[in-house]
Amino acid sequence: MPTEAFPERLVRLIDERSPLCIGIDPAAASLERAGLPDTAGGAERFAAALLDAGLDSAAAVKPQMAFFERFGPAGIEALARVCARTRDAGVPVIVDAKRGDIGSTMAGYGDAYFGDGAPVQADAITLTAYLGLGALEPLFERMAAAGGGAFVVTCSSNPEGLPLQTAHLPDGRLVAEWLADEIAALNDRLGTPAVGAVIGATCGAWARSPLERLRGAPVLAPGLGAQGGTFEQAAQLFSGAEHRVLLPMSRALVADRLDPGELRERAQRYAEQARQFRDKGARTPA
Amino acid sequence: MPTEAFPERLVRLIDERSPLCIGIDPAAASLERAGLPDTAGGAERFAAALLDAGLDSAAAVKPQMAFFERFGPAGIEALARVCARTRDAGVPVIVDAKRGDIGSTMAGYGDAYFGDGAPVQADAITLTAYLGLGALEPLFERMAAAGGGAFVVTCSSNPEGLPLQTAHLPDGRLVAEWLADEIAALNDRLGTPAVGAVIGATCGAWARSPLERLRGAPVLAPGLGAQGGTFEQAAQLFSGAEHRVLLPMSRALVADRLDPGELRERAQRYAEQARQFRDKGARTPA
Repeated sequence: MPTEAFPERLVRLIDERSPLCIGIDPAAASLERAGLPDTAGGAERFAAALLDAGLDSAAAVKPQMAFFERFGPAGIEALARVCARTRDAGVPVIVDAKRGDIGSTMAGYGDAYFGDGAPVQADAITLTAYLGLGALEPLFERMAAAGGGAFVVTCSSNPEGLPLQTAHLPDGRLVAEWLADEIAALNDRLGTPAVGAVIGATCGAWARSPLERLRGAPVLAPGLGAQGGTFEQAAQLFSGAEHRVLLPMSRALVADRLDPGELRERAQRYAEQARQFRDKGARTPA
Repeated sequence: MPTEAFPERLVRLIDERSPLCIGIDPAAASLERAGLPDTAGGAERFAAALLDAGLDSAAAVKPQMAFFERFGPAGIEALARVCARTRDAGVPVIVDAKRGDIGSTMAGYGDAYFGDGAPVQADAITLTAYLGLGALEPLFERMAAAGGGAFVVTCSSNPEGLPLQTAHLPDGRLVAEWLADEIAALNDRLGTPAVGAVIGATCGAWARSPLERLRGAPVLAPGLGAQGGTFEQAAQLFSGAEHRVLLPMSRALVADRLDPGELRERAQRYAEQARQFRDKGARTPA
């Protein structure tokens, strides 16, 4: 277990470096644009170039599991090495896996990503909770034992998710509000904000109440860059919570043919924009 | 692509053999009970013993991804071989992966499980839809091109999932009803009931309306055997839909130390009980 657990390390690195999270999404189209083969080896070289460019200015690295899983065993081996390099540099890895099941199955996923024996060692993973947050408990046990963290999808910016996430419980809460309350209660039990939420940076006003219900838990806020969201949108939604918001960028960081100078310039530019987002919050605490 | 697509093959095998689905869950506790090492090799031998015992009496085989994923690359290799053996025998494989994300990520998961180039070739996978059914579309494209199928978690029997699944949309529908409607509309567009629902066999009366809204789509109904559900509960909930309901059994099929005679006896007994469940429906069509 690292001497400093995930939630503390994350907030420290957001403060010391920036809220930028290096997203590693070696999709077929991205590998083609990078001039790399659509193989596990190509995905690993893609990741290496992004880490070379941005590892020292980011608070976390987020590889997208699906883009490694599609290469089978060789993809998992490549991902394990990407995670190891990142962790060796002292930067936490969030495996973006969106796992979500129940009971002993979640114990299996916990064993897959947390602890010294895990084949892919992560500091945190992303989860979904259609089956309820409590169903994920066996994973949280393994996560907590390893000093790790998790982010549970709570508010997404895609229109297809809205009917579910804004459906009402009998007590009047939205599903996303209920889930945020469940996350906050879980963190109370854990004694640390190890479990955060995924809240799309472009969700807009409806996501504000779920955000507030998290009571200090970290937020993973995708949607900037190639997905079309702006730092201004993020600043408006996350006002007062900036010190615990992680801003992943993935496709926007990728330069044609992975030109090292251009990659470096992009990583530094986005890290600087992310710091401005964070520091605006520092001047107007909420 | 198989000459017979997944939904037709599934219904044919339920009719010709039984609604039994061999669940392969090589959890640590199950491997210990089986007298096998807690390794990828142990998981593969565990799967082989279950296939030896039940492959000829089942309509499908459902390996639980998490219990292979926890062994990393070697686990994925073992799973790929388990899938290949099952498919070579003409039995469809449902990889129980509960994947659920958005956009190009779902294309990545589609590439991981569907089509001749997939590292783990499945006939169907399980999905979750916190982000909405439409977010899964890139996977459905790959699934359809391969003649495959999917099951989307709709009603689960665990209490932690109920607040979400029974939350209300503004038009009065429950989330699970809305999701079932979305599945039915998707199948209309696909022109075949390739996408089914996971509905827990022990959900009880509230799951009846989502079931009816599926309009002929297949159902994967976990909860029998070691999970405590009974065939009587399944018969009551799925009355009139029995010909398209798949009943997975996993831990209940496992005999101590994988005694071949006992494994065979269990598989045949549960297949016979599953046929009685199916044929009760045949006498009372709805």
